[in-house]
Parts: sequence; structure tokens; C-alpha cells
Amino acid sequence: MNYKMLGRFLSLILAIAALFMIPAMGISLYCREMRTVMAFAITIGIMLAVSLVLRLLTRNAKKDFFAREGLLSVGTGWIVMSAFSCLPFVISGAIPNYIDALFEMVSGFSTTGASIITDLTVIPKGLLYWRSFSHWLGGMGVLVFLLAIVPVGGKSEGYTMHILRAESPGPSVGKLVPRIRQTAKMLYLSYIVLSVLCFIFLLCGKMPLFEALCTMFGTAGTGGFGVLNDSLASYSPYIHWVVTVFMLLFGINFSVYYLLLLRQFRAVIKDEELRLYFFIVVISVVLIAANILSCTELKLTTEEGIRQAAFHVVSVITTTGFSISDYDIWPALSKAVLFLLMWCGACAGSTGGGFKCARILILFKAIKRNFLQILKPHKVEVVRINDKNIDEKLVTNTAFYFVIYLMIILASFLLISVDGGSVETNLTAVLACFNNIGPGFDAVGPSCNFSGFSMFSKLILTFDMLAGRLEIFPIVLLLHPKAWKRG
Amino acid sequence: MNYKMLGRFLSLILAIAALFMIPAMGISLYCREMRTVMAFAITIGIMLAVSLVLRLLTRNAKKDFFAREGLLSVGTGWIVMSAFSCLPFVISGAIPNYIDALFEMVSGFSTTGASIITDLTVIPKGLLYWRSFSHWLGGMGVLVFLLAIVPVGGKSEGYTMHILRAESPGPSVGKLVPRIRQTAKMLYLSYIVLSVLCFIFLLCGKMPLFEALCTMFGTAGTGGFGVLNDSLASYSPYIHWVVTVFMLLFGINFSVYYLLLLRQFRAVIKDEELRLYFFIVVISVVLIAANILSCTELKLTTEEGIRQAAFHVVSVITTTGFSISDYDIWPALSKAVLFLLMWCGACAGSTGGGFKCARILILFKAIKRNFLQILKPHKVEVVRINDKNIDEKLVTNTAFYFVIYLMIILASFLLISVDGGSVETNLTAVLACFNNIGPGFDAVGPSCNFSGFSMFSKLILTFDMLAGRLEIFPIVLLLHPKAWKRG
Repeated sequence: MNYKMLGRFLSLILAIAALFMIPAMGISLYCREMRTVMAFAITIGIMLAVSLVLRLLTRNAKKDFFAREGLLSVGTGWIVMSAFSCLPFVISGAIPNYIDALFEMVSGFSTTGASIITDLTVIPKGLLYWRSFSHWLGGMGVLVFLLAIVPVGGKSEGYTMHILRAESPGPSVGKLVPRIRQTAKMLYLSYIVLSVLCFIFLLCGKMPLFEALCTMFGTAGTGGFGVLNDSLASYSPYIHWVVTVFMLLFGINFSVYYLLLLRQFRAVIKDEELRLYFFIVVISVVLIAANILSCTELKLTTEEGIRQAAFHVVSVITTTGFSISDYDIWPALSKAVLFLLMWCGACAGSTGGGFKCARILILFKAIKRNFLQILKPHKVEVVRINDKNIDEKLVTNTAFYFVIYLMIILASFLLISVDGGSVETNLTAVLACFNNIGPGFDAVGPSCNFSGFSMFSKLILTFDMLAGRLEIFPIVLLLHPKAWKRG
Repeated sequence: MNYKMLGRFLSLILAIAALFMIPAMGISLYCREMRTVMAFAITIGIMLAVSLVLRLLTRNAKKDFFAREGLLSVGTGWIVMSAFSCLPFVISGAIPNYIDALFEMVSGFSTTGASIITDLTVIPKGLLYWRSFSHWLGGMGVLVFLLAIVPVGGKSEGYTMHILRAESPGPSVGKLVPRIRQTAKMLYLSYIVLSVLCFIFLLCGKMPLFEALCTMFGTAGTGGFGVLNDSLASYSPYIHWVVTVFMLLFGINFSVYYLLLLRQFRAVIKDEELRLYFFIVVISVVLIAANILSCTELKLTTEEGIRQAAFHVVSVITTTGFSISDYDIWPALSKAVLFLLMWCGACAGSTGGGFKCARILILFKAIKRNFLQILKPHKVEVVRINDKNIDEKLVTNTAFYFVIYLMIILASFLLISVDGGSVETNLTAVLACFNNIGPGFDAVGPSCNFSGFSMFSKLILTFDMLAGRLEIFPIVLLLHPKAWKRG
């Protein structure tokens, strides 16, 4: 392990995060939340000081940087960033307990949107802005952003690649454009353009400026933190549809937008992951809409039924977690569909979390292939996606990813069950955190929050949020003593 | 597909199953249940007639028999056997609906023990015997039994091996002793000796003869059908402990008993699957006992707490499904442990069902290896169990098995959710059927049964029980049109 390079990297992250905090402080200043302004100022001071010390300690770092260093840097980077960024909540007294504040901040950066705050109306505006903004930062990867902007020098291409690989969601990143920094810039451009569009559409629906900004952050990052206690329920149907459409768009692999810019429409239409994603969304919306409209107790008009179905299907599959009604009271079939969507996740290379449609596609095709192999043992077949052969190693790794994924879910479920609570609560709490969705069912349903868990459980769920966002390896490797050996 | 060989095979199965029905008819005769005697007689007549016709139609069958034929024969064989064996329930009027009777019979042969009967006291003794005896037959594999006894002739070694491979639980069968028929005989000997021992121990506890016989069948086959409405709750602590110990023994890989006979104690003690199995059992018992004893509302003495914990841990991990109290009212941690045990299953090569400890061992070791591979990409490591290298193909297949396993669970969960019911009910109903356990939580908890599901859901769960018992492939392949092509 190259400790000096890690130190330099952390120094950079802290400095950048501190700078990103300044607008939040500005909002607090504008709203005359003086205690919060102080809290931000102290935090920024601490972060810059630590950053400076780290920088001085690591002046003559060697540039050796491999996959292991990339994974560990990303894992440590996200933890350090969250550990400092949550300080304004603690110092201002808005969330007095440090573990609670850490949970909230990791939930922000990991774009989960699970909250331990029971009443958002008493939280200062600056802090609300900061936690929503963390979604936007976390959505495309803070560290990738950093790489797109800051020149690192030396063997920077390998450095950049290993960071990008470790942080980006899904199995497909880094192959689209040969030069990685250019890819990152292109992705950010799409991200910013879409975000601005979303913001404008929300303003057109007469949403107040501050709320539109925060809602846009939550939508773009597929995060899910709102600024009102009922998430988005009290807004107009127009706003609901705008958010539905933009959640759907942010759940698409961003390389699709690049292909659209290049006018390669045929490649977009034939993209198998995109087709699967839309197929799952349409089927789920139809099933749920039919199911909740046939349930007379819910007393929904046809438009309400379709809107609620579409909104929540998209909110769950893109792992955003906004809600416009309490789907925990829906009939069993609708809840079952949502439960399955929790396992699914958005497209690879999007801001959405979860298992990812690309992986599901690979696994389905591999299973079909394996069955055919039993029937014709002598014919060797490869898995093909978008007319390209998929490396057998990627297929195997995807299957193992799934195994590890489920083991973490089951282990976390056991650990948080120590608190009590129903099987449904604990299982969906883990699924909602690990897949960066936010709300689950029952005691963590859309009308509830995570404040009922013990500190121990909150730490487990914090781990799950980070492991889910960074796709397991960067976080789990941190726990392995061998990973930290020198050389 | 060699249809004639399949026909011969089915003819043999039907004849054997009909013969096995005779003792059940005898018991009905002894108890003067004349309607049931008639029902058995008619069923036996039908089965022998169909068997004879099939035999005549397939006189000049070619002996070509490969993996595909083995899988399809086993899948079809189990379905045909269950489809006819459930007739006495329908004809006697004990279970008027055919789908219900099929569910009950598949639950018997697959050693699941999930029941749709709400009151066992009104069911004739002959039928109670028959459904418990089906556990005993299903436990070690009816078809393997058939192979151990009946000479097939021709290319029978390949035939036998493909049947044995397709039917036997776990990844390790057929390697212990070079000659397969000898293996089967040896396994049956252990099975019969253990069964007799269990029966004697139950009789020593002053259990009535008929109940002891049925309880022994349920224990040996790790099935779980009882003869009383409260499963085993009303028996003495002695009986509870006897059943606990024998469930544990029947969940062990039977090759271990062979090794014990050969006095290879060192190999037994070092067997990694056996160690994992005992480790999981001990940890789970300790966790649950501590948890339920600390729960003052349950008002348990220390002995009761330990006994209930031990009994239910062993009952669930061996996929038996007997119960001595309603664990659905236990605190969250205990239920979480049981929930995890539902995913686990007994040892490979035992009568127990589920995912199997051997597979868990392979997956854990493979994951550990994969993590180390990230740290040292240039060192190729193989997975080793019991000091033997595991073929990489088996490792990959195990990971894929897990993926298919979970996909079937999630798909079944969605389908039976059409009925309504809670997430907990539907999820554990699928887990309990697919892993051949029997009871789940909530509306399918140990004090309830499966009668509340619709016919559609019962068919889905019947499919799950068969797919679980035969380890997916023989049953799922049946659904694939290409599997049925000639040649």
C-alpha cells in the first residue's frame, strides 16, 4: 500500500469538500442561521487544516498506484469525506449525535436518501441544502469529478483509471472513449445539462426556488432527500410527472446520451440494457396501476393510480426513494413488485444504485446459456450483449458479485435484527440502504424514517450504504488486514 | 430425447410406487377405514395398469441414455409418481380437491412437510401413514432406491449414474465408492439402520407405535409431516431431544457414516462441511436460546429455552420442519436467525434439502479467494476443501446455482403475492417450500398451514417443492421445449 499517495488523495478530497460547503454556508448566512454559519465555518476550517497537514506530510510520494490502491483510496476517501462533512450537523446542534449525523451524511453522498430526521421543518436551510447537494455530488462520483478537473501529474493515467473504475457504478465504465479524463468530462456535461433542465421544469411548475433546487439535486443524484416532511406528496401532479421523467432519465446509462449526441440512434434503440430497463419499468407500472386501481379501499382516480404507480416504480428502480403516497398500505402484489424492484436497480453508468440492469442481463443470458449447455454439452457458447461477446471472466465475476451482494444483505439483516422489529422492516431497511434507495416497508416505509434503529444498527446500515454505492469491493477490502500491507 | 427409455422408466416407477402403497392399504384395512381401502385399491389398480401399458409400448427401447435423459427422467418421474400417489386422498374424499392432494403428496415426496390439511384428526390412519411414508421414500430418493434394487441391464452403468446424479442432493454424490450401485446400497444401509434406531428410541419414550412410526419417517426423511395437529408439541421433552438428535444425524452427509464404518475418524473430524454444519447449529442455538430466555414474556425455564432453540434450529437447518412451539412469536433476532437458517440447508448427500452447507463452503472460500486475487492479481489460487483442489467449473456452477436459486425464489414470491398476504408470509412460504422445510413465518407459521393459498399459488409452491428437492435442473429443464427434441 502506497500510504503517501493515499494521504495526498485524502488531502485533495478534504479541500474540495470544504470548498463545496461554501455555498451551503452562504445560504445559511442569507437565512440568518448564525449558529449554522458558525458550524460550517468551523468545519471548513478543520477540513482545510487537516488537508494542509496531510499535504505537508506527503510531499515526496511515489507515484506507484495500482488497482488495490485505487480501491482503498476510494473507500477511505468516501469515509473521510463523510466523517468530516457531517460535522456541521453536530456542531450546529441540528443532529446532536455524531453517529446519526454520519448516517445522514453517508445517506446523502451515497444517494440513498434514508433519513433519521423526524421533522425537517426545524432543520436550518443551509443544512437542508448541504444534505441535498451531497446527493448531487455523490451521484456521479465526487472523486471522478475531482479527476476531471484537477491534474494529478506523473503516472496519472493509471491513477485516474483505477479511481474511476473503483468509484463508478456498473461494469461498463471507462471503455466508451479512449481517454478517461475526456470521458469524465463528457459524463459531467450530460449530468449538468440534464440537471439544469430538471431545475427549469420544476420552476415552471411554480415550485419555490429553494425547494426546486433541492428536489433537483435529489432527482439528479437519484438520492431522495426532500425538504418537506411528506417528501413530494404535497406538490402538484405536474411536479410528480416531471420528477418521474427525470428520475427515469438519470437512471439511464450516460453513455446513451453520448451516443445520442453522436446521432447513433440505432445503437441506442438496440441497446439491450436500455430495453430491459424500460421493459421492467413498463411491466411494473402496468401491474401496480391495475392492482391499486382495483383496490377500492384506496379510492384512487385512474390518473392518480397511474401517476402513483409510475412515480414509485421509477423512484424505486432508479433507487431515488422519493414518495408521493404511502405505498406501504398498497395490496400485496404491488408491494411484491416494489420489493423485486428493490433488488433490480438502474442502468450501469447512471447515477442510480442497486444491482444494475446490466448485471441482470448478463446473469439471465448466462443462465440461459448454461441450461442449453446441459442439452448440448459439446457446443461451447459465449454470452453476447449488444452483438458483442462478453468475456467469460466478467460473467463469472457478475455471478460472484451477486453471491457477495446477497451475503451482505443477509448478514446485515441478522445484525440489525438485534434491535427487534419485523422481518419486513429489517429486510427492506437493509435492501433500501444497500441499494441506495431510501425508504423500505413497514417501520421504514415512506411515511416513516430510520430514527428508530439503535446506534449499532445505524452503523451497519451506514456500512451498507457505502458498500452499495461503491459496489462492495472498495469498502469490504478496507476490512481486510492484508490490504493494508506495505509494498 | 429417448422417449422409449423414459416410458420404461416411468413404468418401473409406477409399479414400485404401487407396491409401496400396499402397507398403507393394510393399515387402513386394520383400522377398518373401508372407504380408504377402496381408494388405495383403485389407485394401485390404475397405477399397475398404466405401468403395464407403458411397458408394452416400450418393449424395444434403445439404451442410449445421457445427462439430458437422466435429468428429464427424474423430473418426469417425480411428477408422475406424485400425480398418481395423491389419488387415494381424492378418491377417499379426505382431500376432495386434486390440486390440494397433489400439493400434499409432492410435499410428502419432496420431504417438505408443508400441509393444506387443517385438522389431522379427521384424516384416516392409512392416509396419514402414506403421507409420512412418502417422506421416508423421498428422503434418500425413490429412484436411487429403485436403482439399488432393480437391475436394468445394457448400458446400465451410465443410466444409473445419470439418474443418481440428477436425483441426489448436493454436489458430491457418486465419487465415494467407485461402483455406483454399491454406493447406493451402502447409503441405504446407513439410512435403514439410523431409521430403526430412531424408531426404537421413540418407542422407549412411550410414544404409541403408529405415531412413532410416522414420526420416524418424518425425521429420517427430514420431512416434517406429523400425525397430531400441534406437530410434536404435546410429546415429552425426551421425545423432543430424541427427534432433535436424529434430525441432526439425518442432516449429515451419509458418506460420513461410511467413513466411520471404515474407522477413518480423522477424515470425519477434519471434514470441513461437517464442521461448518455443527458450527452453524451451535452458534444458532446459543443465539436463539439467549434471546428467547431473555424475553420474559415467553416465560421459559432454562431447559425449555435450550430445548426449543435446539429443536427448531435443527428442524430448520435440516429442512425437516417439525415444531414444538410457535416460533413465530419469538423476538426479532431469533426469527432472523431462523430466517437465515432457511437459506442454509443441511449437508450435501444427506436427506436434508435446501442450499446445502457444502455449497456455502465453496462460495465462502471462493469469495475469500477472489478478494485475495484483487490484492495479488498475478497469483492464481484454487479453492481447496478437505485438502483437495476444487475444480474451477464446480466453483462457477455453484455461484450460478445460487443465482438461479434466488431468481426462482423472487419469481415465486411475486407470483404468489397475487393472492395477497404479507411480504413475510409470501417470502417465507416460498423459502419453506423451495428449501423443503415446511412451515415459514406469519400466516404460514408453525401454528398455521398452507390451506389459505389459491390453487394457482399452490401449483407454484408445488413446483418450488419439486425444484428444490431435485435441485432445480431436472424440473426447470422440463419447461424448455428444446429439451424434448428427439435425437
